[in-house]
Order: sequence, then C-alpha cells, then structure tokens
Amino acid sequence: MKHRHTISEYLLLKLEQLKVSHIFGVPGDFILGFNKNIENSPITFVNTCDEQGAGYASDAYARLHGFGVVCITYCVGGLKVTNTTAEAFAEKSPVLVISGSPGISEQKNNPMLHHKVNTFDTQKKIFDELTVASASITSPDTAFQEIDRVINAIIKYKQPGYIELPRDLVNVLGPKNYTPQPLDIEASDKDVLKEAIEESKALFQKAKHPVILAGVEIHRYNLQDSLNKLAEKYNIPIATTILGKSVISENRRLYAGVYMGSLASTSVQKFIEQSDCLLVLGAFMTDMNLGIFTGKFEKKSTIFSNFDRTSIGYHHYEQIYLKDYIRELTKSSLKKVTKVILPKKENIETTITMKDNKKITIKRLFEYLNTFIDKKMMVISDVGDSLFGSMALQTNARTEFMAPAYYASIGFAVPAAIGAQTASKESRPLVIVGDGAFQMTGQEIATIIRFNLNPIILLLNNKGYGTERPMMDGKFNDILNWKYHKLPEVYGEGLGIFVQTEGDLEKALLKAKNNTKTYSLLEIDLDKTDLSPALKRLTAELGSKI
Amino acid sequence: MKHRHTISEYLLLKLEQLKVSHIFGVPGDFILGFNKNIENSPITFVNTCDEQGAGYASDAYARLHGFGVVCITYCVGGLKVTNTTAEAFAEKSPVLVISGSPGISEQKNNPMLHHKVNTFDTQKKIFDELTVASASITSPDTAFQEIDRVINAIIKYKQPGYIELPRDLVNVLGPKNYTPQPLDIEASDKDVLKEAIEESKALFQKAKHPVILAGVEIHRYNLQDSLNKLAEKYNIPIATTILGKSVISENRRLYAGVYMGSLASTSVQKFIEQSDCLLVLGAFMTDMNLGIFTGKFEKKSTIFSNFDRTSIGYHHYEQIYLKDYIRELTKSSLKKVTKVILPKKENIETTITMKDNKKITIKRLFEYLNTFIDKKMMVISDVGDSLFGSMALQTNARTEFMAPAYYASIGFAVPAAIGAQTASKESRPLVIVGDGAFQMTGQEIATIIRFNLNPIILLLNNKGYGTERPMMDGKFNDILNWKYHKLPEVYGEGLGIFVQTEGDLEKALLKAKNNTKTYSLLEIDLDKTDLSPALKRLTAELGSKI
Repeated sequence: MKHRHTISEYLLLKLEQLKVSHIFGVPGDFILGFNKNIENSPITFVNTCDEQGAGYASDAYARLHGFGVVCITYCVGGLKVTNTTAEAFAEKSPVLVISGSPGISEQKNNPMLHHKVNTFDTQKKIFDELTVASASITSPDTAFQEIDRVINAIIKYKQPGYIELPRDLVNVLGPKNYTPQPLDIEASDKDVLKEAIEESKALFQKAKHPVILAGVEIHRYNLQDSLNKLAEKYNIPIATTILGKSVISENRRLYAGVYMGSLASTSVQKFIEQSDCLLVLGAFMTDMNLGIFTGKFEKKSTIFSNFDRTSIGYHHYEQIYLKDYIRELTKSSLKKVTKVILPKKENIETTITMKDNKKITIKRLFEYLNTFIDKKMMVISDVGDSLFGSMALQTNARTEFMAPAYYASIGFAVPAAIGAQTASKESRPLVIVGDGAFQMTGQEIATIIRFNLNPIILLLNNKGYGTERPMMDGKFNDILNWKYHKLPEVYGEGLGIFVQTEGDLEKALLKAKNNTKTYSLLEIDLDKTDLSPALKRLTAELGSKI
Repeated sequence: MKHRHTISEYLLLKLEQLKVSHIFGVPGDFILGFNKNIENSPITFVNTCDEQGAGYASDAYARLHGFGVVCITYCVGGLKVTNTTAEAFAEKSPVLVISGSPGISEQKNNPMLHHKVNTFDTQKKIFDELTVASASITSPDTAFQEIDRVINAIIKYKQPGYIELPRDLVNVLGPKNYTPQPLDIEASDKDVLKEAIEESKALFQKAKHPVILAGVEIHRYNLQDSLNKLAEKYNIPIATTILGKSVISENRRLYAGVYMGSLASTSVQKFIEQSDCLLVLGAFMTDMNLGIFTGKFEKKSTIFSNFDRTSIGYHHYEQIYLKDYIRELTKSSLKKVTKVILPKKENIETTITMKDNKKITIKRLFEYLNTFIDKKMMVISDVGDSLFGSMALQTNARTEFMAPAYYASIGFAVPAAIGAQTASKESRPLVIVGDGAFQMTGQEIATIIRFNLNPIILLLNNKGYGTERPMMDGKFNDILNWKYHKLPEVYGEGLGIFVQTEGDLEKALLKAKNNTKTYSLLEIDLDKTDLSPALKRLTAELGSKI
C-alpha cells in the first residue's frame, strides 16, 4: 500500500476492490462515524426501514454479486440481523456483517452503556455461531490482518463473516507497510483427485443414463460455464434442486427440470432416481431439496461433489475442490451419451387466453406468468406458495430465480428485491410474496422508492398463512386483510392494482410492465383455500410430522 | 398433581398459574402442535405481523403483568426475537421464550432440515447468551423439572428464559407423581443484613438531606408499597431514574422528579448530587440513567441497594435482598426529616391555550400532553425524542410510563402497546413514537385492530432519525416521508389525522379521546430540526463520542 490508511479506509478499500457498490443498513450512534465515511466513499449506503430489511437485501445482493455487506449499530441493530445472517449461513451466501460498538476507551471498567446486553462481547459470541469467521477489532496493529482474515473466509466458504468496529478506532491509522493477506489457495490434493476421477469415470463408462443434479454451489462458486462445458461435451442432462433452480438456463437443450423428491413432477423424479449414474454437483441434501426426504437415490451409483469434499457410494474423498473435480472430469474422456432422453416436460403454453370474469387461481397465475416473464426479469420468491408455485416457472438466463428455498425464512422477497436490483441494474425483479410475508417486511417498498427501483410485486393474498392451513389450521393462521393495493397512497408513489379475475391479471401485468419508472404492487385476491399442486403435496408430507 | 399431564399441558398449566392471559408469537410448522394446544386452552394467542412485534409485545406484557411469553418457531422465528430478548435481559423484564424445534426423532443422523442454521443447538447456544436459564427439552422424564427450572429463574431474576420444545414431545406424557420444584427462597443472611442496616442508619442519623433515588427494580419486584412506606415514615423525598420513571406516582407529596445527570433539570440534579445521604434503591447505573455519565455522586455518602447486593461507600454486602433491606430499614427508627425541601418543580400548566394556526413544536406538544393525559392512560414511549420529550410528562399512578430507556431499541412502542393493553385492559395506551421507529414495526397496528385494542398513537414525524442529526448528519438519516395518517385506509379501520398546528393537535386529541372503539393515529408534522430541550443536551454529549 502506498499510503497509510485508517482502519475505516482500509475496510472500505477492500470492499471497493470486491466491487461492492451498495451497503445496506440502518445508522445508529455507535456506527455513525463509519456511516459518514461510507457516504464520502464511492459506495452507496442504502438505509432500509428496519435492519431486517437490510439483512435480507444484503443477502440477495451477495447471491447475485458475490459479496454483500450489511452495516448496523451495536446490539439493537446487530441482533436484528441474526436471522438473515443465519439464512446466509445456511444457504451459503457471502455476507459481511459490520457492526459498530462502543469505543475501546468507553469499555473500560465495564460501564452500563446503552445497547449493551450482558457483557461487551455478547453480540460477538452470538455471531460466532452464525458466521465462518468473526473479529472484534481491538487494536490498530492487528486491524488490517483481522479484516483480511474475515473477508478471505467469506470469499472461500461463501458464508457470512462478522467484524465489530469500536467507534474510537474508525479513523485511527493502521500499521505502516502492511501486506494484505492472500486468499487461501484452494488446491486439491492431486492423488486424491486422480483416484476420485478414475472411480467416477468407471461409473460413467458403465452407465446408460448419467444425469447431473446441480445445486446452489455451482452458482456461488461461479461454475456455471464449467458445468455447461461438462454437460455439453458428453451430452449429460442437467436437473437442478429447488435451491439451485436457475443455476443453468432453463431453455438449454440438456435441461431436465427441477427435482424435489416426490414433490417434483413424476417424470423428473423417475428420471433422477432411476439414473444409473447420478452426479450431484454442489447440491445440499436438505429436506426441501429432497422433497421432505421423499427423494431416494441409489447410493452405489451416486457421486456427490461439493465445495471441498466428494463422496462416491459410501466412501468419501477429502481435499478435493468442486471446481477441480468438474474440470478434471470434463478432461477425462468420458463416454458420450448418444441418445439424450429427457423427462417429459409439462406443457408450457407460450400464449394463454385469460378469461375476463373468471376468478384468478394460483395455478392459472403461474401458468400465465410463464408467458409473461421476459429475459430482463428475475424472479424473487418468498416462502410458501410463492416458492412452490414458482417451481412451474421457466426462467431464461442464469441466476434468474432467487428464493430462501432451504432456510425458508418468510419476509425475504420484498427487501431481497432491493439487494438484487442494486446488484444487477439491468434486471427487473418480479417479486412473488404472500400476504403473511408481506406484513413482515413489506414496508421496505419505501426503500424501493428512495433508491429508484422498479420491481413488479405480486402479492398473493390468500388471507393468512396458507402453507400452514392444510397442516394444522386455527385462528393463529388468520391475519388482517389489508387493502394492500392502497399502499402507494401512503408511500406517495407507485402503482397499486387490485386483481380478482384472470382478465384483471392480464391487464394489470401489462400496466406493470409499462410502468418502468417506479414499482408496481399487484394485490392478487386468492381464495383462502387455493393451493398450488406442489404445495398440496408438500403440506401433506409436512403435516404428518406435527 | 392429580392427573398425569403431557409436556404441553404442564407448560400451559404453569402459565395459567402465573395468570398469563396472552401469549404473543407467529406460528410455524415446528410449533404448530403447541399453537393448537394454546388455542384449546384459556390463554389467547396473539399472532403479530412479524416476530419482532411479538417480542416487543411480550416484553411490555411482562413489565406490567410480571410474566410474559413469546412463542415462535425454530430459528426463522426464534432468531427474529433475539433483539427483543436482549432488551428484556438488559432492562430486567421476565419474558419466557418458547421455541418449537424439529422432533427428537427427526434430528437423528443430523439431517439438513429446513430452518436449521448450523447444528441443531445453534439457536439454544445463542439464547444462552441472552437469558438467565435455558433448556432444550430432550426427554419426557426431565421435561417438567426443566420447565420449572427455567420459569423459576425468570421469576427470581426478572430476566428472560428460553425453552426449546421438539415437536414430537409436545403431546407426550411427562412423569407420574411429579412434585413441582419450589421457587428459590430469597433469604438475606441475617448477620450481613444487620451490619448493613446499622451502617445505613448511622449515615442517615448524620444526614440533613437524605434522598431516595428509585429505579426499575422497585417495580419489577413489586416493592412500590414498601418504598412508599419507608419514605412516608421518615419524610424522605424520592426521585426516580428515567428507566424507573413512574415507579412511584408523580403527584405524591414526596416526589422530587426524574434524575438523569445534567440532562435532568438543574434543580433535580443538584438535589440528588448534593444530598448528604443518597439511597439508590433498585436502580442501574447506566449511561442513560446517569445522563451519559454526567451524573456524579459522592460515593462516601451513597448507599446502592439492588436485588441481591448492597454497597455503601466503597464496600459491598452480598446476600442481602432489596426487599429485606427496605423492610428492615423501615423498621429501624431512623431520624425523621422535619422539614421536607423538594427541588423547584418546573411549572406544569393545568390548562394551556393552543393557537389555531401556530405550527406545532415538540415542546408545545409535550406541554399540552401534560394537560391531556388522564388517569386511565399509560404512556408508552419509543426511543429518541419520544423518550426525552416524555421526561417532562407528569404521570399519575404506578407503572404509567414505559420505555426501553436503557437498551434503547427503536421500534418498541407500537407493538408494546399490544402487550401493555392486553395485560392491563382498563388502561389506554398513549403511544409516542418517531417516524423512524414507526417504519420498523408500525404494521403491528394490524394486530391492534385484530385484538380490538384502542391506543392513541402520536407519531412524531420529523422526517428521519432526528436524534442522530445533531450528532452527525448525512443522507443516512433521511427516510421516506409517508402519508402515515392514510394508513387506516389500508388497514380498513381506525382514525387517522394529520396534525400541523397547535389547533389541529387540540382537536385531534379530543377526537382521539372520544374514539374509544378503535385506535387513533395522529401524524404530527414537525420541523426536521425540532428537538426537545433534553434531547439537545443529550445529543451534544453523545455526539462528542463519535
């Protein structure tokens, strides 16, 4: 480094090097000094209505951009993003949490400062459980090293990290002549890799119907091109998990559909489970991905390759990285599949006639959306029928579908649209959110307005927690039925439309598409008992566990 | 116990014995079975829009009722109430967190179940940092004992506890012939108590101006009557801290005002700091209570007595309980103060003439509120000028003022009104909340409607984070200026009024008072730079630390 930097300058410099354009958060007195420095940097600070919104937005930003940042004050801010940090941890999203804290000099003699819970390190201990690396900056001498350590771990593991910055160290100079810590080199062990590739090859050569099941790590480690190369070279069909949906473009020749155990279409389920060589790449074996464990693989003919570990049959190889495994497998002259057989695809109509006075249903909504979504849109889905209905959507390019499909924290979608559109300015988010989720974080529309974004928000109003009704119903699943489409009058901007019929939907979506200057909020009035076919199957499985 | 109970029955029975009438939360699949059991019990389940709202509501309920409960699902629910649990911990509020979790049978072989973060005990480890006792129920044999242990600790320490309930144990029978664990007997050590009382008495006998400074523990341990008895018997004036505001009725003869270091009125500050025998009872020495440490006591003549510890001068007595200390001191024939001198009180007008076309200001608002508040109202204040302006309010009976005056987490007031009014049906909450705080949790008005509550909500709209502007201003302190008074049109119920002048305020408050069937939301349009005198002093102190 040519110039000597303050701790704040060094941290912001690192973020600029990572091409971070936006930081999400809410200001507070223990972080205000750093907030001012962000304002004076090239990075835009997006202050959301509540810290929860900032947490979700930074997670979404991280999923698209490769590195996200949420910046909040001590405890009253930090503890509001524990849930979103947990989401990023569970679903592998590289988010840096920067929290302000009382100055080192203020912490002497352990006084009772506002925002303090128990001891001064209570918040850090909590984030230790939710991150792959955490640091409480305590001295300018070690600050840069600590910042590097946390950021490098986030980049390596694609999981969150935590930096706590006492306010009296923000503008203090760090060490002279500091050499930044290099990223860990992720080198596979050659011998281990060789044996794993040989064994994989042998499995492939015997197989008649090899299939790839691709998961979210393909996206997180930016391996889409490598994956496509492998598949194209040997004509191997690719299905994805629900968490990995859209890691490959769904209109590609070899695309086989979304697999989710018995909750997927029967043809996709059979296709995956009857494969004589199933290559699971970068996918997590979660209950959601496996359709509440209704998915059953023949382990002997299955290869699981993840970030830093590969398993074949019942044995494991350590010290192999996914990227090396895919590259070497591509090089290793597998037998080319001569006749590609794909599962029967459900007919996706390219045009649909909507009936003017027919009550809109979940099923028809998603059918119509398939004709509506264009290449400039990305689908951001909340949990519940927003997610399960979306299984039937066909997306076009990479990373066009985003949902917390494993951790399943509701309230994700509206604030995620903020993170997604600031990360990818050319895309327009199509947000699909239930009324229950909207009541949690829907106020972040105010942030959408302030930062000039223009998502189209489809609010599926089924009057309560529709996913839970078939599992166990009671008054606890009812919520107040707002006139959601009137919210633009409160916020002073935006297009709000109430949709009751198929005809309404068609007209409203057209209006929304043309309303490019601001957001559109379509309140879609659904029957309380209306469920997508996938959700019906899912809740039957989930309900049996209660 | 006559009948053999399931774990759920036992837990609900304990809560009924504690006269818990309402439980706050949001349902989710890992807690649905228990939700159904609550629905079938005499306890009402209040489902809020977001878990954060339930957390704040349960804290407020606990402060008034003596025991509060928040009930949520695993991780995606639980981690959303970490901040409100931290608040309850810091400010001593007895809240029980009940979280659902995956069934014991589902946890075998460590599968990746939805809502799981890292390991199955991640959430419990986090709550270990935020509670005085926590239990993950793992067996019906120990379940009742564990429930008793956690509940007894909450009652003893008036701080939160945590119970994690795997869904497959909810309806499982516990042990036969179980004898509930008794509460710890809090007995002071007689010799220690005797010495402390003797030393205290000696200090009192020499003193000319003894004063009591009462804090929040007086309220939490229900010691208001004991305190009044002590003060009345010996004619000792009582001031309170800001966190303890309203632990004694502010129109009592011996009431001396709210002390807050140099942020209080000069006369109250002098009165406390120049006392030759200051008896600090149940108060925490927090930065807020001490006016950002501008408060300075002569330690030699100060007695601090808290829940289980008393200090005089520079030495400490352990194993003395506050209740015993107050009782014994009352018995010990102190010298009676013959001439009670109280600090000069600021004039509180009983009638005020509001000028029709004069722009409303913070100062005038609180002056007028002093003439408006009646005995049936309780003031619930959020953080910022809602709190500091409220210092000038005179409340009438016990526990009429509620605010997170130490932990200072914004967004408290609206959901707290739900907890407060369900705990104390005869009181009507007067909620004072800033626009920044309202954007965090204001949607809980929907919950207010569903449960037929009727608070009067004064929304102080100063267009952003007004408390932060004088410390350090920037775009990060700006938020979108909603048309808040139009929200009743979205929620379909309620009275919304826009207040710009003194005349508007007078009319609007009258309308609100008469609007008893539902809530009223008064949007009070303030100048962006309008600050209360107390906030001006505070932010000058706080700003110097950034």
